[in-house]
Amino acid sequence: MGMAKEVFRSGPYADLMAQGVRVGNTLYLSGQVGMGEDGNIPDDIVEQTMLAYQHIAAVLTEFGATMDNIVDETFFVTSVAETMEHLEAVYGAREQAYGQKPEVSQTLVEVAGLLLPGLKLEIKCIAHF
Amino acid sequence: MGMAKEVFRSGPYADLMAQGVRVGNTLYLSGQVGMGEDGNIPDDIVEQTMLAYQHIAAVLTEFGATMDNIVDETFFVTSVAETMEHLEAVYGAREQAYGQKPEVSQTLVEVAGLLLPGLKLEIKCIAHF
Amino acid sequence: MGMAKEVFRSGPYADLMAQGVRVGNTLYLSGQVGMGEDGNIPDDIVEQTMLAYQHIAAVLTEFGATMDNIVDETFFVTSVAETMEHLEAVYGAREQAYGQKPEVSQTLVEVAGLLLPGLKLEIKCIAHF
Repeated sequence: MGMAKEVFRSGPYADLMAQGVRVGNTLYLSGQVGMGEDGNIPDDIVEQTMLAYQHIAAVLTEFGATMDNIVDETFFVTSVAETMEHLEAVYGAREQAYGQKPEVSQTLVEVAGLLLPGLKLEIKCIAHF
Repeated sequence: MGMAKEVFRSGPYADLMAQGVRVGNTLYLSGQVGMGEDGNIPDDIVEQTMLAYQHIAAVLTEFGATMDNIVDETFFVTSVAETMEHLEAVYGAREQAYGQKPEVSQTLVEVAGLLLPGLKLEIKCIAHF
Repeated sequence: MGMAKEVFRSGPYADLMAQGVRVGNTLYLSGQVGMGEDGNIPDDIVEQTMLAYQHIAAVLTEFGATMDNIVDETFFVTSVAETMEHLEAVYGAREQAYGQKPEVSQTLVEVAGLLLPGLKLEIKCIAHF
């Protein structure tokens, strides 16, 4: 009441959810996964990580924000073992996406599954202005 | 530290947690599940969705808010396959609860289980004023 | 974009994530688990609960906050059955950590796994000032 939402919709689920909702100084992003614009899901968890951050960066751009605005991340992975096995490469790709050591809190849990078979991680972010 | 919490407690776990906590312009809601007031858990995921949103709406009402105030949702489902199979009905029930196309970000993951056997989804919402 | 982040880093993953990020009146904490400072993971879920809250309290202290500032919790547990079996002791340890009946919203889900074998719960908190 009073505080207006700024909403960005995109993609096949645009009718069901926004990719980002800004209220006041806070921007809530929908979880982003490692699927290409063409619907392709690479097998490599590092490539999926890079794609997910590309989607996150694209949503941020719509709101005039950058990766620096992210304050909190939740990583939902389908295999902690695979994530740990590729830890350096996954976090290397993440640091590259941020352009620096990320100044964000993070929570990582292993889930039983994600929206589509083959997806290995989903990243949910909150950003602040 | 200055900012007062407004808290709403209800139900069997009222001593353990609040159903909603408001600080400033933000309202955090506890995850809501598809269980009836009588403790009955319908088998149908669409009915569970409707019940969960009834609980969410009831918490919002306690704070003078409505579904319009929701900005972010996390869906924890026990089966993505079952959710996808009933996608139109589940999201139809959700749109009906919102009274319009929801202006919210959303994250959906499959968890290994919820608080009680038979529960198929839990919805965690954040609302803003 | 104007609003400065206050960041606290600590522990083996200090390069990868902050244990807490404050922006404005909100403090996002990384998920905390029941591992001792020595890397030991007790088998008992109640001991893990106590350890996780010790870590949470330590992060809050870095920001001049206390458990009273927590407004929202997500419990990721590896076994709802084991959590329910020890419900009174787990929530007793939690109430002791808070020093009173917690004024927080809570969501509890069972995940497929956590960062290390033997971990039974991870607690993700948001605090407000």
